[in-house]
Amino acid sequence: MSITLLKISCPDRVGLLARLTTFVAYHGGNLLEVHQFTDALNGWFFARLAIDSGSLALDTAALSKAFSSLAVDLKAQWSIRETTQPMRVVIVVSKADHCLADLLWRWRSAEMPMEVPLVVSNHEDLRPLVEREGVRFELVPVPGEKSGCPEARAAAFAKLTGLFREARADLVVLARYMQILPASICEEWFGRVINIHHSFLPSFAGANPYRRAYERGVKLIGATCHYATADLDQGPIIDQEVVRVEHFHTPDDLLRLGRDCERLALARGVRYHLDDRVLIHGNRAIVFRD
Amino acid sequence: MSITLLKISCPDRVGLLARLTTFVAYHGGNLLEVHQFTDALNGWFFARLAIDSGSLALDTAALSKAFSSLAVDLKAQWSIRETTQPMRVVIVVSKADHCLADLLWRWRSAEMPMEVPLVVSNHEDLRPLVEREGVRFELVPVPGEKSGCPEARAAAFAKLTGLFREARADLVVLARYMQILPASICEEWFGRVINIHHSFLPSFAGANPYRRAYERGVKLIGATCHYATADLDQGPIIDQEVVRVEHFHTPDDLLRLGRDCERLALARGVRYHLDDRVLIHGNRAIVFRD
Amino acid sequence: MSITLLKISCPDRVGLLARLTTFVAYHGGNLLEVHQFTDALNGWFFARLAIDSGSLALDTAALSKAFSSLAVDLKAQWSIRETTQPMRVVIVVSKADHCLADLLWRWRSAEMPMEVPLVVSNHEDLRPLVEREGVRFELVPVPGEKSGCPEARAAAFAKLTGLFREARADLVVLARYMQILPASICEEWFGRVINIHHSFLPSFAGANPYRRAYERGVKLIGATCHYATADLDQGPIIDQEVVRVEHFHTPDDLLRLGRDCERLALARGVRYHLDDRVLIHGNRAIVFRD
Amino acid sequence: MSITLLKISCPDRVGLLARLTTFVAYHGGNLLEVHQFTDALNGWFFARLAIDSGSLALDTAALSKAFSSLAVDLKAQWSIRETTQPMRVVIVVSKADHCLADLLWRWRSAEMPMEVPLVVSNHEDLRPLVEREGVRFELVPVPGEKSGCPEARAAAFAKLTGLFREARADLVVLARYMQILPASICEEWFGRVINIHHSFLPSFAGANPYRRAYERGVKLIGATCHYATADLDQGPIIDQEVVRVEHFHTPDDLLRLGRDCERLALARGVRYHLDDRVLIHGNRAIVFRD
Repeated sequence: MSITLLKISCPDRVGLLARLTTFVAYHGGNLLEVHQFTDALNGWFFARLAIDSGSLALDTAALSKAFSSLAVDLKAQWSIRETTQPMRVVIVVSKADHCLADLLWRWRSAEMPMEVPLVVSNHEDLRPLVEREGVRFELVPVPGEKSGCPEARAAAFAKLTGLFREARADLVVLARYMQILPASICEEWFGRVINIHHSFLPSFAGANPYRRAYERGVKLIGATCHYATADLDQGPIIDQEVVRVEHFHTPDDLLRLGRDCERLALARGVRYHLDDRVLIHGNRAIVFRD
Repeated sequence: MSITLLKISCPDRVGLLARLTTFVAYHGGNLLEVHQFTDALNGWFFARLAIDSGSLALDTAALSKAFSSLAVDLKAQWSIRETTQPMRVVIVVSKADHCLADLLWRWRSAEMPMEVPLVVSNHEDLRPLVEREGVRFELVPVPGEKSGCPEARAAAFAKLTGLFREARADLVVLARYMQILPASICEEWFGRVINIHHSFLPSFAGANPYRRAYERGVKLIGATCHYATADLDQGPIIDQEVVRVEHFHTPDDLLRLGRDCERLALARGVRYHLDDRVLIHGNRAIVFRD
Repeated sequence: MSITLLKISCPDRVGLLARLTTFVAYHGGNLLEVHQFTDALNGWFFARLAIDSGSLALDTAALSKAFSSLAVDLKAQWSIRETTQPMRVVIVVSKADHCLADLLWRWRSAEMPMEVPLVVSNHEDLRPLVEREGVRFELVPVPGEKSGCPEARAAAFAKLTGLFREARADLVVLARYMQILPASICEEWFGRVINIHHSFLPSFAGANPYRRAYERGVKLIGATCHYATADLDQGPIIDQEVVRVEHFHTPDDLLRLGRDCERLALARGVRYHLDDRVLIHGNRAIVFRD
Repeated sequence: MSITLLKISCPDRVGLLARLTTFVAYHGGNLLEVHQFTDALNGWFFARLAIDSGSLALDTAALSKAFSSLAVDLKAQWSIRETTQPMRVVIVVSKADHCLADLLWRWRSAEMPMEVPLVVSNHEDLRPLVEREGVRFELVPVPGEKSGCPEARAAAFAKLTGLFREARADLVVLARYMQILPASICEEWFGRVINIHHSFLPSFAGANPYRRAYERGVKLIGATCHYATADLDQGPIIDQEVVRVEHFHTPDDLLRLGRDCERLALARGVRYHLDDRVLIHGNRAIVFRD
């Protein structure tokens, strides 16, 4: 069954949900699922409506047009999308393969409603893993920050975003990409770049989180799936996962145990995004989980 | 702020949520929170609407009357309740105090929106714990099943339900009550008696779950909060909690660790019920968590 | 560094650990790690000693010989093994690939200290997944239990165990193998066949656990990694994993969420076994976790 | 049964455990349980030996004397204690009662092997809760840091530690005490003051962790049980607990959910300490869990 997803956030006011559900009913739409959240502290309204596409009297374009005048009145941010058109996801990696292998397995198993037109890396290592799945792999080496070649570095990132555009990416997933995206990319692609950080943010933001977790002697480690922003590791958090550790776990053990957290948190976060279940407000992510 | 809660379940059909939200809007109601779930496998619709009571043009009685004709048309099970009237909860215990002490602490801390007019037990042991909180305690001894006195046993349970009625109980919580309620009581009070079972159901239904968990060598134990039904330990599950255990944990350790699971699962389950967040359908509980 | 692992279980008596550590010290051994557990309820002693192989005056064969007279005196079950010789693991599958893909990824990532000489299946489906990793794949079709050909079925299992022996398997992992091994194989290979069951045992032993979990309305589902025994789903439990579910999860969602539990529980269970961290006593598994 | 507990940490060397177990055997001791951990990264050895006191040829004082010469040779930090002498625990609180009520319940239920000679607070509020348990309550008001009376503040803390000494405290538990102990007290009482912090450290160290967790939009909150040190919230971590939260949880909800984390983490941490299961090394706590 094809489903039409309406996602909306706007200032709260009386009767919002009645207006939305009446709008859908007016166009013949059969509501399959409604999620709504009113942030009373900030006076904001969030909703996600899943509608049986076949029941609608209008196609997606016409429905969007009909909705846009209502949306203007509500000062809303919104989107309408049909699930027959899965998102196109570009995965960006470095050398670590666990998140990539996991995403590819879930994609192949039809667990993730997405297309993967491209994987990009700054290293060659993972090319075989990608190409054996019949997925295009592109190498975009990035000169180090201390290379003294800011122009070459900028050119590399320009090439990267060029590839995103060429692949008509709806979403970019940084699956343990060990480069920091320039602020300008984070801003241009805001809400469309998901990153996995290998710590339980805000703990151990920045480099070497497992080593620092070991040194601090924490009893739980974790991973955080969040939207990339210009402020490193500060973007809206979509999901987190933790695992209990003990004194006998070395930094290498934390790495190993952390990999499982990273795979799970990233997979869940990406899945929520692909299904239009995430709405961003300021630095918080409203996630209508499934 | 006083909140009016509308809880409803009925056969699914097109436009249900629009009808409900329009009904609320028609009577001036400002929707604070809406939860909706359509069970597509069984064709059933569930919703909980939280309305700002002050915005409504009608009082609860009049609103209920207005709703009843709509409800008949929808073949709905429903309730409308104002939160200014917290539920009256009778707690029933035997000798173990951990669940009782926890519920009383949460009640005293205003974490649980309830009144506790009465605690009943088949033993005297917990009287001081109850009375020092200023709560009435009643002893209702129950002759054993093998006592050869079925009449005395029936009389004891009749006294028990008499006390429930006298206390105008909206909810009965079996907080480690070591007697099996007669089927007739479970049926009469269906959906209004919550029990805590000291295992992760359906594992180890029946007696001595911790001992059996130890013998089976499981690596996780737990507790289950469910509605009491005539079929022992088979009622709709509201919440469950687990904790990891290891080979070095004795049956006594499982008892100790299990107590924390029981307290948490029971407290959450009762809290969901008190806030009209649970809808029963067949043997499953739909829980709109907060 | 090569490590010599001494694993022992025997009736408890005074001074056991002193005798073991003195034995090791007598032969020059430097103890890297000692795990010990006394089951006071059953009067049984369990230990695992990790010794720096380089510090030992004897090689593994000579050390084993020296230990055997002590072991006879202690009425002990024991093993001595050097980690330079990783276990040989045969993986047995049907059509589901998630556990297999996960084990192969962990093996390739050197997270699992094992060799994989062979994967066997009763279906062709997973051959490509296996062979692209350079691992041998064998098809052994098994006639159904209701096929009326018990001889053909027995022959299939004889072929299966023949392959185990030919591959010199130290361990057999049933990674979602949808056939029931004959009791005779379970007995002959006792303690060397690990299975993953897709429920939180003892809940939902047998077939279709996710469907039954859905129908029962549980709030947590899970997976169990255990040794295969003639009594189906009754063997010693090595590890379990659970995940929280809600009313909106369909049986298909439980399948999806359960796959992650299965992968994690199986990987941990196998890893503990490969590292000689599991000792079986009756129907319980003592697991010295890392 | 009375148990003699030997706790030791020292630089690692060959044959340490053999020397310890031989020492115990020499004095007739029957080992009930041995925990050992070698921190290979830092070259340090940790052990806890539980000995049946009745089997020992010496009493605790004589055994300690016998051990002290061995300990000097090993450059060890160590203690020998008999469990017949439970630790004396002073609990320090402010106004929040959840941790205190929980500790008192566990103490009354014999879940915590301790004596509670005294509860101290800087407010009167919790006096009734304490005195009704038959426990002494002392009020020690502390002038605010900005009161301009550093002398009065110092005097208050002097009174506090005077009470600790008068009560012959083996352990001080800060059960949501909203004052910062002076560095001098933390140093003098190092390893004998346990604090509960209401966040998953190192996240949200300092004030208002739940408000900040809400603002950051994390998907898991927690609590940390650690030894108090002069560096606020930086001491060795004994245990941590987390709970999943969602966008619909307000800061007040986080407070409520956090209370359960705090109670559990503090209870476990204190229990481990009471049972001599915690060894501190630098800023990390080795915890031999039960």
